[in-house]
Amino acid sequence: MKVVNVKEKLASFSEHWDPRIAGTLNGQMVKLAKIKGDFIWHSHENEDELFWVIKGTLHLDFRDKSVSLKEGEFIIVPKGVEHRPWTADGEEVHIMLFEPASTINTGEIEGHELTRSELKEV
Amino acid sequence: MKVVNVKEKLASFSEHWDPRIAGTLNGQMVKLAKIKGDFIWHSHENEDELFWVIKGTLHLDFRDKSVSLKEGEFIIVPKGVEHRPWTADGEEVHIMLFEPASTINTGEIEGHELTRSELKEV
Repeated sequence: MKVVNVKEKLASFSEHWDPRIAGTLNGQMVKLAKIKGDFIWHSHENEDELFWVIKGTLHLDFRDKSVSLKEGEFIIVPKGVEHRPWTADGEEVHIMLFEPASTINTGEIEGHELTRSELKEV
Repeated sequence: MKVVNVKEKLASFSEHWDPRIAGTLNGQMVKLAKIKGDFIWHSHENEDELFWVIKGTLHLDFRDKSVSLKEGEFIIVPKGVEHRPWTADGEEVHIMLFEPASTINTGEIEGHELTRSELKEV
């Protein structure tokens, strides 16, 4: 058992769109990520996904609307719902993800250059 | 799908040791709680439990050590591990919990005056 300082963990890596594993519990993972620019449209067939903003503003497009989340806000994207995360104006945004350990970042879009299927611990 | 502002949700209730449901995903729940003073020793037979500090300092006693968590820090308490959360000097501390929907706050200590088995949504 260890105490995890989220901002210290985020300061320990710099890659964008490359989530790191910060904790595992009940078959779920806590992941930390730095993101910047546009991600791709995708969905997760079997996994709900929680986005929690640690720093900056996260934009999420859905097929029927868009939302923006500030620091201290979260949203749960249900399985099967297409979404596209992005950040505006070159802003680097820090987020925490809660999701099943099986979740792949690009969902059903396998083998994309942004796909990260083997995550590092942080 | 809705954007949840954690601090606004915490401002909407005042009871201590009475977790509120802020989100549900993959059979897990995101809970928000205000705590103050001493909780009881307990463990969760089948559920790992994540404590994330939103405001203040959370103290957690284990049988072999104690830890303190500040804002922006979290810890995962594995199933079966006895723990006792408390806060010092009358401080009200705000926390987020991530755990299976089945988790009862007092664990194996059923029917205690602090037991909350029917949680409200926030």
